[in-house]
Amino acid sequence: MLTKRIAHVQSRLTEWDVQGVLFFNMSNIRYLTGFTGGEGVLVLDEREALLLVDGRYTTQARDEFASGRIIEYRDRNEGLSRVVSELHLNTVGFESSHLSFDSYCALRDRIPGTVLKPLSDTFESLRACKDPNEIDCLKKAARIAADALTSVLEKMMPGMIERDIAFALETEMRNRGSEKPSFDTIVASGGNAAKPHAEPGYRAVAEGESIVIDYGATFRGYHSDETCTVALGHVPEELRTIYGIVKEAHDRAIDAVRPGVACTEIDRIARSYIEAKGLGHRFSHGTGHGVGLDVHEYPRISPLGKGLLQEGMVITVEPGIYIPELLGVRIEDTVLVGRDGCEIVTRMPKDLTVL
Amino acid sequence: MLTKRIAHVQSRLTEWDVQGVLFFNMSNIRYLTGFTGGEGVLVLDEREALLLVDGRYTTQARDEFASGRIIEYRDRNEGLSRVVSELHLNTVGFESSHLSFDSYCALRDRIPGTVLKPLSDTFESLRACKDPNEIDCLKKAARIAADALTSVLEKMMPGMIERDIAFALETEMRNRGSEKPSFDTIVASGGNAAKPHAEPGYRAVAEGESIVIDYGATFRGYHSDETCTVALGHVPEELRTIYGIVKEAHDRAIDAVRPGVACTEIDRIARSYIEAKGLGHRFSHGTGHGVGLDVHEYPRISPLGKGLLQEGMVITVEPGIYIPELLGVRIEDTVLVGRDGCEIVTRMPKDLTVL
Repeated sequence: MLTKRIAHVQSRLTEWDVQGVLFFNMSNIRYLTGFTGGEGVLVLDEREALLLVDGRYTTQARDEFASGRIIEYRDRNEGLSRVVSELHLNTVGFESSHLSFDSYCALRDRIPGTVLKPLSDTFESLRACKDPNEIDCLKKAARIAADALTSVLEKMMPGMIERDIAFALETEMRNRGSEKPSFDTIVASGGNAAKPHAEPGYRAVAEGESIVIDYGATFRGYHSDETCTVALGHVPEELRTIYGIVKEAHDRAIDAVRPGVACTEIDRIARSYIEAKGLGHRFSHGTGHGVGLDVHEYPRISPLGKGLLQEGMVITVEPGIYIPELLGVRIEDTVLVGRDGCEIVTRMPKDLTVL
Repeated sequence: MLTKRIAHVQSRLTEWDVQGVLFFNMSNIRYLTGFTGGEGVLVLDEREALLLVDGRYTTQARDEFASGRIIEYRDRNEGLSRVVSELHLNTVGFESSHLSFDSYCALRDRIPGTVLKPLSDTFESLRACKDPNEIDCLKKAARIAADALTSVLEKMMPGMIERDIAFALETEMRNRGSEKPSFDTIVASGGNAAKPHAEPGYRAVAEGESIVIDYGATFRGYHSDETCTVALGHVPEELRTIYGIVKEAHDRAIDAVRPGVACTEIDRIARSYIEAKGLGHRFSHGTGHGVGLDVHEYPRISPLGKGLLQEGMVITVEPGIYIPELLGVRIEDTVLVGRDGCEIVTRMPKDLTVL
C-alpha cells in the first residue's frame, strides 16, 4: 500500500516538472512511509524514497519504513544538501505550506544549485480520498469515541465540573483503545458554551443550560471528530428553538453531501438556513473540514473552501449558533462521501438529548 | 505585566527599523496578551496592540485580552490588510520562523505597499528569561509531575504494560492539577528504550531492564520536562555501567550551568564525557533545550546551539545513551539559571532507582 502511494507521487513528477519532491508535513510522511516519529523529511525522486531523520528517530525509522532508505542527519539542511547532491536534483518540489519562511531561506541558501518549486496545493489534497483501510480506522475511532461518551453521559449530573467531565471522557476513550484524544476535549456549558473553542474550566454544569461536548478518539493515527450538545434536567424555550435551527442546518448540509458538490455549497446550505432565521452573525466559523491523519485537513467546508467533494472524502458538518454570555449549540457529524450521497461515520444520536 | 511586555517590544521598534510587528507564534501571543486560543495574529505598533482572531475566538479574546483591541476576521490576510492599512504601516517585522512560505507569499501579495521584514531570531529569545511568576508556574508543574510519578512508581510491577503506565502517570498528573501532559508521555522499556522518542506500546516491563520515563505536567500553560530511568528487580552490570556514565555526564553539565556560559559548552561537557567512554555515537541527540510556554523553546543546548546562558533561563539537561535492540538510559532535569550557578527545578532523585 505504501509502495503504491509512493509510486503515485513518483508518477506525477513529470507533470509537476520536477525531478524530486521534499515532504515536510509529518502526516504526509506517515501516509507515504508509515513513519510515526515527530520530525523528519521525505525525499522522493523517480526511483527512490529516502527518509531523513535525526538520531532520535533512526531506529524507529528503520523499523517503520523498512522498504526505504534511512538517512541520519544532525542538521536537517545539511542532510538535505547531501541527498539533493547525491540524487542530482536540479529542480525539486516542496511542501511550501509546511516549511517556514526562515527554513525556506536557509534551505535555499544551502542548495544554491537547486530550484525549489512550491507545490503545496497539490499535496494538500494528497490524503483527501480515503481507502478502505483508512475508512475502517476512522470508523473504529468514531465507535470508540461514541461508546466512551455514552458511558460518560449516563453518569452526568448537575454540579459536575466541566474539566472533570472532559477528563472522564478522555479516560473512557483511552480505556477503549484510543491512542490519544483527537484534540483538547471541549466540555463547555452555559456562557462558556458561547465560545466555539472554549477550554473546559472549573465551571459546574447546571440544569437548563446547554453543554457542548466536542471530542474525538484516535485509532492507528486516524481521528474522529464529533460534537454533541446536551441539556440537563429541562430545556428552556430559547435553547430548544436554537437547537432546532442548528439541527436543521446540519441535516440540510448532510443531505447535500455527494461527489461533485462544491465545498462552498455545503457551507452555503447550512449558513443560509441560519441566516434566514436571522442568526447568521451568530454562526461564527466554517461548516466543516476534512478528517484523517490530521483532525483538520483538506478540504475546507467554508465560504473560503476550494474544490469539489469526491467519493472517499471524509468531512465534518458542524454548524453552530453562539449567543454571547448565554449559550451555545453546535452539532457535528463526520461523514464519508459515498458514490451517491454520504454515510455518517460518527455514532451519537443528534436529536436533543436531555439527561 | 502584559503591558510591560508589550511596552518592551514597542520600545525596540526603532532599533529593528520597523513601524510595527506581526506575531504569529501562539506562545508569544499568549505571553504578550494572555490569549490562550488556538489561532490569531498580534499586531503591535508604537501606540497599540491589536489581536486579530476569527469568529471562534472573539469572545475569548475579549475576555482574556481586555486591555487590547480585538479585530475579528474571516480570512487572516484580509484582516491583516485592513489593520496594516489603518495603522499606516510601511515596514513591519514578522515572525518568519512561524509563517509558512505559502502564507508569507499570500500575505506579501495582499499588502504590496508594505515591506515585510523577517525578525525571527529576535523573537525566538523573547521569552527566554523567566520572571518570578513564570518560575513559580514552572516549579508548580514540576512538583505536580514528580508527585504523580512517585505515586505511579510505588505501584510499578513486572508485567505492567508501557501504555498503561503512561496513562496512569497522565491520570495522576491531571488529578493533581496538570492541565495536560507537556507532550506524549514516554514509557519505554528494554529494546524500546533504545529509541529516544519511543511511544509507549503494548510491551510489558520486565525485571532487569531499564525503563525510560520522559514526562511532564503543565500549569497555567507552563511545562515541566523530566526523564527518569528506573529498573525493576535487579540491575544487570551493563545497565549499571551505562547509567553511571549518563549520570556523570548529566551532573557535569549541570555543574557548568551559569550565566555567560555558551549553550554549546554545556552540550560539549556532557558529550565529551560520553565520547571519552567510547559511546559518543550512542548519544544521538542534543543535551537540552529551553522550557516555558513551549516545552521546546529557545535556547537549544546542542552542538548547534546559539548564544550564552542568562540568569532566568530555564533549560533541560538530558544526556542519554541508547544501545539498539538492548537498552536505553536518559537522565533529565530542568534547571533554572541563577546568578551564580543553577537551581534544579525538577524534583525526582536521579540516582538509579531500583523498584
